Amino acid sequence: MTLYGGIESGGTKWVCAVGSGPDDVVARTSFPTTQPEETLGRALAFFRQQPEIAALGIGSFGPVDVHRDSPTWGFVTTTPKPGWTNIDVGGVMQRALGVPVAFDTDVNAAALGEQRWGAAQQLDTFFYLTIGTGIGGGVMGNGRLLHGLLHSELGHMRIPHDRAVDPYPGACPYHGDCLEGLAAGPALESRWAQRGETLPPDHPAWTLEAHYLALALVNLICILSPQRIILGGGVMQQPQLFPLLQREVQALLNGYLQVPALLDAIETYLVPPALGDRSGMLGAIALAQEVARS
Amino acid sequence: MTLYGGIESGGTKWVCAVGSGPDDVVARTSFPTTQPEETLGRALAFFRQQPEIAALGIGSFGPVDVHRDSPTWGFVTTTPKPGWTNIDVGGVMQRALGVPVAFDTDVNAAALGEQRWGAAQQLDTFFYLTIGTGIGGGVMGNGRLLHGLLHSELGHMRIPHDRAVDPYPGACPYHGDCLEGLAAGPALESRWAQRGETLPPDHPAWTLEAHYLALALVNLICILSPQRIILGGGVMQQPQLFPLLQREVQALLNGYLQVPALLDAIETYLVPPALGDRSGMLGAIALAQEVARS
Repeated sequence: MTLYGGIESGGTKWVCAVGSGPDDVVARTSFPTTQPEETLGRALAFFRQQPEIAALGIGSFGPVDVHRDSPTWGFVTTTPKPGWTNIDVGGVMQRALGVPVAFDTDVNAAALGEQRWGAAQQLDTFFYLTIGTGIGGGVMGNGRLLHGLLHSELGHMRIPHDRAVDPYPGACPYHGDCLEGLAAGPALESRWAQRGETLPPDHPAWTLEAHYLALALVNLICILSPQRIILGGGVMQQPQLFPLLQREVQALLNGYLQVPALLDAIETYLVPPALGDRSGMLGAIALAQEVARS
Repeated sequence: MTLYGGIESGGTKWVCAVGSGPDDVVARTSFPTTQPEETLGRALAFFRQQPEIAALGIGSFGPVDVHRDSPTWGFVTTTPKPGWTNIDVGGVMQRALGVPVAFDTDVNAAALGEQRWGAAQQLDTFFYLTIGTGIGGGVMGNGRLLHGLLHSELGHMRIPHDRAVDPYPGACPYHGDCLEGLAAGPALESRWAQRGETLPPDHPAWTLEAHYLALALVNLICILSPQRIILGGGVMQQPQLFPLLQREVQALLNGYLQVPALLDAIETYLVPPALGDRSGMLGAIALAQEVARS
């Protein structure tokens, strides 16, 4: 069995694994994202103790440079995360391990993982959206991840915000009340003065949260016409959110798009990731498999 | 020279042409969109008088059914346009003319035309947005038009609407103040009680219009990461709009996406269609060429 390495390099923690698919992960470790040198060093030390890998895939927090022909390919670029601006991740790992390296965003990796082994098998146009400490997403269009100019930054779209209903100004340092500024975990906590997971299921916080997320999903539906929508991340662990969201998306679309997936089967259209919290890590392994084949 | 037929079947008028590219249009006609039977009859009469075509491409107003294996392929479906709900256009033309027919939205055809001969040559991920009587757009992702569930409906995304600044409630019969409801030609006319083209270039209408359109472009940039943006339609004939829009997009992004196309070269990133008002008609011919090859 050929083995591949995968790194889900998030802003909070890194997950490193060796394997070839969901049922064949032979080694795995995770550690907090500290300073770059230490974090990269821990990842390298892990892979050096493992059986040989044919290639490495990295799904990174961003923004990142994913263009192969760019001098800063493999870099984390303009992240607000202290110490991580313009840090080479892909190149460092490639030189140190001597194997081909694929480098993409963590959320693009998760989308790829879900397509290979999860909730988006056989689909060519869909997206994975994660709602947690931040909001981000990976988009597959016509069978490949979208990388036109850069990569998707789904958390930073603008949505209607009625300040009479919700005076919270938004938490995004760049845009204030963009989607992430209104609906990510820190916005929930700051608006209601308690952590999201401590709010009861019938708290009005969840109706408002579903409203903001549904506005974003409507925009994504109008723009991408996706075959399915996969929603992950810590905030989506609240089981009451899926039905609220499904109803609110239908209410906002108001029958404009007459397709059965939206009208009659929305509970199989808006779904959680089939790989649970392993979409990103397994997607990184899928990235490695792609670069090994190319 | 192999000749192809193209129909840009808009909600206001149909343009029919025979040719093989921008410099080889050998015949062309246009007529108003009246009732289906009459309109389809005029198109058929035109093509029957022309030299033989190898295939026909149709870029239609929508929503339409573009899925080949669907029983209603080639239909205009839930359009609010009187008389045109659930009308077979593609199948009727295919049976009457006996040639392969490609059927897509008018705006997808325009995007394809711009890729083949216009402002998006060599690009694989971009979109064409038209702002006129309605707002619609065609999206190319990884080299092909997006057709995941249906097709893009860019005019119906939701954007922030500050009713203290702009109390106009929006004109969309489905969504009120969606993008089209706030920023298409009829909204301009209704909000300012005069037709858009009669408003002077320094009228505050244009700053507000640029703001709404820029919010939509920011969402499209965050979701698609397009390599270029092509903006057409009657409203974009106002020359003051392009610079207003370019500045407003930069202001709204606020430096978050550190790419030269957005920071330093936005005047070559947000551009008008290179084919002028022929993008849709020529794109229909490009659709015909694709179906003839397949």
